[in-house]
Amino acid sequence: MAYELYYWPEIQGRGEFVRLALEEAGAEYVDVARRRGGVAAMQRLMDGAAAPHPPFAPPFLQDGNVLIAQTANILFYVGRRLGLAPREEAGRLWAHQLQLTIADIVDEAHDTHHPIASSLYYEEQHDEARRRAADFVANRIPKYLGYFERVLERNPQGNRHLVGRRTGYCDLSLFQLVAGLRYAFPAAMARLEPGFARVVRLHDRVAARPRVAAYLQSPRRIDFNEQGVFRRYAELDREA
Amino acid sequence: MAYELYYWPEIQGRGEFVRLALEEAGAEYVDVARRRGGVAAMQRLMDGAAAPHPPFAPPFLQDGNVLIAQTANILFYVGRRLGLAPREEAGRLWAHQLQLTIADIVDEAHDTHHPIASSLYYEEQHDEARRRAADFVANRIPKYLGYFERVLERNPQGNRHLVGRRTGYCDLSLFQLVAGLRYAFPAAMARLEPGFARVVRLHDRVAARPRVAAYLQSPRRIDFNEQGVFRRYAELDREA
Repeated sequence: MAYELYYWPEIQGRGEFVRLALEEAGAEYVDVARRRGGVAAMQRLMDGAAAPHPPFAPPFLQDGNVLIAQTANILFYVGRRLGLAPREEAGRLWAHQLQLTIADIVDEAHDTHHPIASSLYYEEQHDEARRRAADFVANRIPKYLGYFERVLERNPQGNRHLVGRRTGYCDLSLFQLVAGLRYAFPAAMARLEPGFARVVRLHDRVAARPRVAAYLQSPRRIDFNEQGVFRRYAELDREA
Repeated sequence: MAYELYYWPEIQGRGEFVRLALEEAGAEYVDVARRRGGVAAMQRLMDGAAAPHPPFAPPFLQDGNVLIAQTANILFYVGRRLGLAPREEAGRLWAHQLQLTIADIVDEAHDTHHPIASSLYYEEQHDEARRRAADFVANRIPKYLGYFERVLERNPQGNRHLVGRRTGYCDLSLFQLVAGLRYAFPAAMARLEPGFARVVRLHDRVAARPRVAAYLQSPRRIDFNEQGVFRRYAELDREA
C-alpha cells in the first residue's frame, strides 16, 4: 500500500526531507495535501478527536494504520524499510542523531527570518532577522557544516556518505540542507563552501543520483520560495 | 556497567531530561562532567579525532562502546532498557514523537532569552527577548500545553500518562517542561495552568514518585538558574 505523506502543498519545508527519501527509494506514495481537498484532509487528521496519536504539526506519514509525525521520526521509521538506513541498532541511532542535528540547523535557518514569532510577518521582525541572520551566517553555518565535514572525514567506511557505505536518508537531508542554504544565502555560501569540500561533494553526488535528479526536474519538486524554511531575502545574505 | 552521562555540570539544561530518566529507573550512572576534570573529558570526547561518532553538543551518553547524543535519541535508546518506554515499535515511535515535540518547545523556551544568538549575552538581545517571550507566553505555551492535554485526554489507556499505562520518559520530560516553565514564567503559568488540568496533575504525580522526589531533594538536582534553558527574567514574564 502506498505511503500517504501529509505536508503543506506549496512549500518544500520540513516535508521535503521525507519526499526526498521516498523519491530516492522509488517508494509508492501520495502527497495527500497536493490533491484536491488534501489540506482539509490534513487538517481533519490533526484535529480529529478520534485519533489516539494526534500530530502536533505536519509533516506526518500514514502507513496503513500507523500515523507518525516529526520529520526525523518519520525518517527513522521509513529509513530501514526503504533501505536508506543501517539495519543494526547502533547505526540506526547514529543516522538518527545526525538527522536530529540537521533538524536543529533547519530550525535555526527558519528563525533567521522569524526570530521573534512564526505568527508575525517577516516584515514585522525584519530588524531582528538581520541580526539573527548575521550570526547564523558568521557562526552557525560554519559550526554545523564543519561538524558534518568531520563526520564525513571520520566515517570508517569512506567519506562519500555520512553513515556506512551506502546513500542513506541523512545524505539526502544534507543535500537538501546545502541546497536550502545556497538558496537563502547565496553570497555567504559562495564564500563558505570552499571550507567544506566533502559536504559540497556529497551534495553534488546526491543531486546526480538518477532518481533524485529525475525528481528535481519533475513538477513534484516544489521550487524554493519565500513561504518555506529557506527564504531568500537579499538583506539577510548581505549582513554576512 | 554504569551509564556515563556527559553534560554541563552547572545547569539542568537538556541533560536534565536524561538525568530524570536515569533517576526514575534507579539506573547506575556517572554524571561525568560533575567530577573533577570531567568537563575536560567531555571536551576531549567532542573533539577527539579518533571518535567515529562525534557528538555535535552535549548531552551525550556512553554505554559500553556506544556513544549517543541528542537528548531525544538518548531517551529513545535508554527508554526501552530502563522500562520507561513501550516495547513494540508503534508505541516506541509515538513516545519518541512526543519527546521530539517537547524538545521543540524547550528550544523555543531557550530562544525567549536568546532570540538573536547563543553567542551573545542576554543583555545584548534584551529588547528582542521581550518581544519573543511575549509571543511565547501568549501563543506557544498554550499551543503546546493544549496539545499535551489532548494527548493525555485521548490516551486509550487513561489520562494519567502520555503513552500507555505506565510512567515513561515522556511523562518525566513533561514534568520537567512544566517545572521549567513555572520557574521561567511564574506569573504567566499561574494564569495559564487552570486550562491544562491533566498536564498539571501529571506534573504533580511525577514529582511525588519516590525516586523522583528523592532526586529532587538531593544535591544531584541542580537548581534552576540563569545559565540554563529556563531562565527567570522578571521582564520576560511581565510581558505576558
